[in-house]
Amino acid sequence: MSGPAHLISAVEKRLGPKAVITDAADIEPWLTDWRGRFHGAAGAILAPASTQEVAEIVHLAAENRVPLVPQGGNTGMVGGAIPPGDGTAILLSMRRMNRIRSLDADSRVAVVEAGVILQTLHDAAHEAGLRFPLTLGARGSCTVGGLASTNAGGTQVLKFGTMRGLIAGIEAVLPDGSVHDGLSAIKKDNRGYSIDQLLIGAEGTLGVITAVAVRLVPAVASRAVAWVGVDRPQDALSLLRFLEGRTQSVEGFELVADDALRLVLKHIPGTRAPLEGSCRWQVLVEATTTEAGHDISAELEQLLGDALANGLIGDAVIASSEAQAEAFWRIRDSISEAERAEGQTLAHDISVPVDAMPDFLVHASAEVERAFPGAVASGFGHLGDGNIHFHVRAGSRSAADWYEREGPAITRFVDDLVSAAGGSISAEHGIGQMKVGELARLATPARLHALRAIKQALDPLGIMNPGKLVP
Amino acid sequence: MSGPAHLISAVEKRLGPKAVITDAADIEPWLTDWRGRFHGAAGAILAPASTQEVAEIVHLAAENRVPLVPQGGNTGMVGGAIPPGDGTAILLSMRRMNRIRSLDADSRVAVVEAGVILQTLHDAAHEAGLRFPLTLGARGSCTVGGLASTNAGGTQVLKFGTMRGLIAGIEAVLPDGSVHDGLSAIKKDNRGYSIDQLLIGAEGTLGVITAVAVRLVPAVASRAVAWVGVDRPQDALSLLRFLEGRTQSVEGFELVADDALRLVLKHIPGTRAPLEGSCRWQVLVEATTTEAGHDISAELEQLLGDALANGLIGDAVIASSEAQAEAFWRIRDSISEAERAEGQTLAHDISVPVDAMPDFLVHASAEVERAFPGAVASGFGHLGDGNIHFHVRAGSRSAADWYEREGPAITRFVDDLVSAAGGSISAEHGIGQMKVGELARLATPARLHALRAIKQALDPLGIMNPGKLVP
Repeated sequence: MSGPAHLISAVEKRLGPKAVITDAADIEPWLTDWRGRFHGAAGAILAPASTQEVAEIVHLAAENRVPLVPQGGNTGMVGGAIPPGDGTAILLSMRRMNRIRSLDADSRVAVVEAGVILQTLHDAAHEAGLRFPLTLGARGSCTVGGLASTNAGGTQVLKFGTMRGLIAGIEAVLPDGSVHDGLSAIKKDNRGYSIDQLLIGAEGTLGVITAVAVRLVPAVASRAVAWVGVDRPQDALSLLRFLEGRTQSVEGFELVADDALRLVLKHIPGTRAPLEGSCRWQVLVEATTTEAGHDISAELEQLLGDALANGLIGDAVIASSEAQAEAFWRIRDSISEAERAEGQTLAHDISVPVDAMPDFLVHASAEVERAFPGAVASGFGHLGDGNIHFHVRAGSRSAADWYEREGPAITRFVDDLVSAAGGSISAEHGIGQMKVGELARLATPARLHALRAIKQALDPLGIMNPGKLVP
Repeated sequence: MSGPAHLISAVEKRLGPKAVITDAADIEPWLTDWRGRFHGAAGAILAPASTQEVAEIVHLAAENRVPLVPQGGNTGMVGGAIPPGDGTAILLSMRRMNRIRSLDADSRVAVVEAGVILQTLHDAAHEAGLRFPLTLGARGSCTVGGLASTNAGGTQVLKFGTMRGLIAGIEAVLPDGSVHDGLSAIKKDNRGYSIDQLLIGAEGTLGVITAVAVRLVPAVASRAVAWVGVDRPQDALSLLRFLEGRTQSVEGFELVADDALRLVLKHIPGTRAPLEGSCRWQVLVEATTTEAGHDISAELEQLLGDALANGLIGDAVIASSEAQAEAFWRIRDSISEAERAEGQTLAHDISVPVDAMPDFLVHASAEVERAFPGAVASGFGHLGDGNIHFHVRAGSRSAADWYEREGPAITRFVDDLVSAAGGSISAEHGIGQMKVGELARLATPARLHALRAIKQALDPLGIMNPGKLVP
């Protein structure tokens, strides 16, 4: 028997048939990422139901020298949860570990297993009169373990930070099968290097996160969502600074190019433009309050009125109902899907210093379109975090093999611009397999050495998600 | 020439005499920690003025296989910045690297060198209309590099988190002399394992932090400071939960045993008891607002009035002036100094889950006093973080050699209680040399293995602060 076959049989013997999926039809949907860019092969999906079962699987994997590829909701953007194509690795699905172990309203901490879906955590916090603030488009299928392993961001980072800032503790099975238990819900712990922090964003290459203690925040009493038209990205940033100087209520600030809005209107049924006129750029602004008596809509209306009077913005509309607020957010959350429907898109999840982003966006778009005439470059997303999804569509260069033929050169071109601006080629999506080559090309020797040394130290057998993250 | 002598001479040749202090009288004050518990020896203090000079020193240290012990303000509690007693290591003072490189009010980020004193950073932020919220008793001499290297906490963690949560980026010289530059002020960066997070709290064992980008927050418009008397620690926690359910303004919540207050009144000139009656336990509560129009004193008075009416607290007084507020804080900040004046004290910086701390404090004190009759056990500090400084004084067991003779047994006794409660033997002070034995005794095999593997991977020559943190 081959190594993988041997591991599958050993796990089935030890944990029973429920923990092993071998039917090709059941495996197949999990071998391709949702964007359809990465395809892998695996003889089985192992599906443990407890931390102990994960530890047994990792022990057996180490014994048999068979790599494991941890996977949550398979909503990743960089192929980090897709196994290699040669069938040498086995998928480790965390979806059966889906219990909320505890939720303490006093200490505002929930301990949830890796396979809990984000929306489920949102609902549980809401029922307790609290809130887990991190959210993103894939909330209905992405898992907490995946969010932690990729240090996910999303649309509320401006106020609440990325996953890293919302995690109070991590439980994980390390590559030698030992269990790291960082869940004890102590708020301060300086017992040496933070293993928790090392595992956050490690994309499963240093172990398998099995449970996460997350911090909850007070529930939102009400929110106001506005759609604002501006001439240039710089005006959007000026609006953000204007608002930040006057209120601490703004927690969402998403830039949307007019081009992106038009794609959504074209491809996503039931969407309509929030503003009547046309603006080159638009911003979704969300303000929230935790105080029942606070009229947040009136506050945001007043602030945007002042911004309009000051000539900072061109137009604005505040959602008049929760349904309209949802409709505004749906536009924002559907951009990737609309782009996919439109055709081939090269996605770049990048960041530069916040103040530098407006100019970067304008100049980088122009430079890409000059270097690759006919291509269409644009960006959308988290302007207040300095994090834009800088996407390049084939445009008039469209061809069946455009992505494969021109993609690498365009991406190198974009990544060089990002690096020259002191930015990051991965702001919130991670490295996965998609960016590992670019990381090797662009990281400093100090960073490359550190990444490789840490990987080698903690996973000397190379059984945890090989080929991902570490060049 | 010996290794250290060779290194000193090589550094002097390369960087000039300003970078090398060899006069014994100038070195001596930096060889003992402020509590007087740890004494070291070093043939010189190396004092680089730039990151480049640090890199050259680390290169030379690696070449000569001579360990370096980084040091900031020498205000540490666990001997982490004191060199070994055998003279094999050299002190690396970061105090000449004391520039604030930038402070951007728009992005609310300051880039400060490791040797900048905390108070200097406070002042600079204040001048820009902003605030760096982390603060602690040693603010006039501790340095930002030391705060980052120890993941310091302090009195405002309840609202703003520890140093880890306030750091936007780290610049450091790694053990091979390469420079890790994480200062670019990008807010989101998922390019692999976070080297920044690994260096935070590493106590100089993985490299030398040379500069830190810190997040600033809006300035405080006004604050209210109250001194509250309660019967039991559990009542103090109930008060905290009561306040948290009604306001988001509370940022300081410090428990003070009556015993500690009496020591301060006895040893610290100019202090007086805030409350007239006597309470077994007392709490310093600080509430702040960033809004100029908000009467925070009235809000806190109302809330404490309600708490009094509900029987949650015994008595309370709100500081009627900024001077009185400072006087309340001075009591809290002088406890360690008063204890030192009183005689021998065994300090334990511990944490357990917040809700468990009141019972833990009461029971652990009783158990220590039962096991070591005559000793006096008590605790003070950050109840809202589940972090208490659990101190044991010699009491009637006092003897010249009490600390050496009984200290280890008492500390093991306390640490066992902490471990049984799922807590941490180092909440905010770090491991240093003081706790390295207890960490070896109590850490899980998974944690010990990870700490050692990481240290070995990044500092294979063992030249960075040997004997500290890693058992």
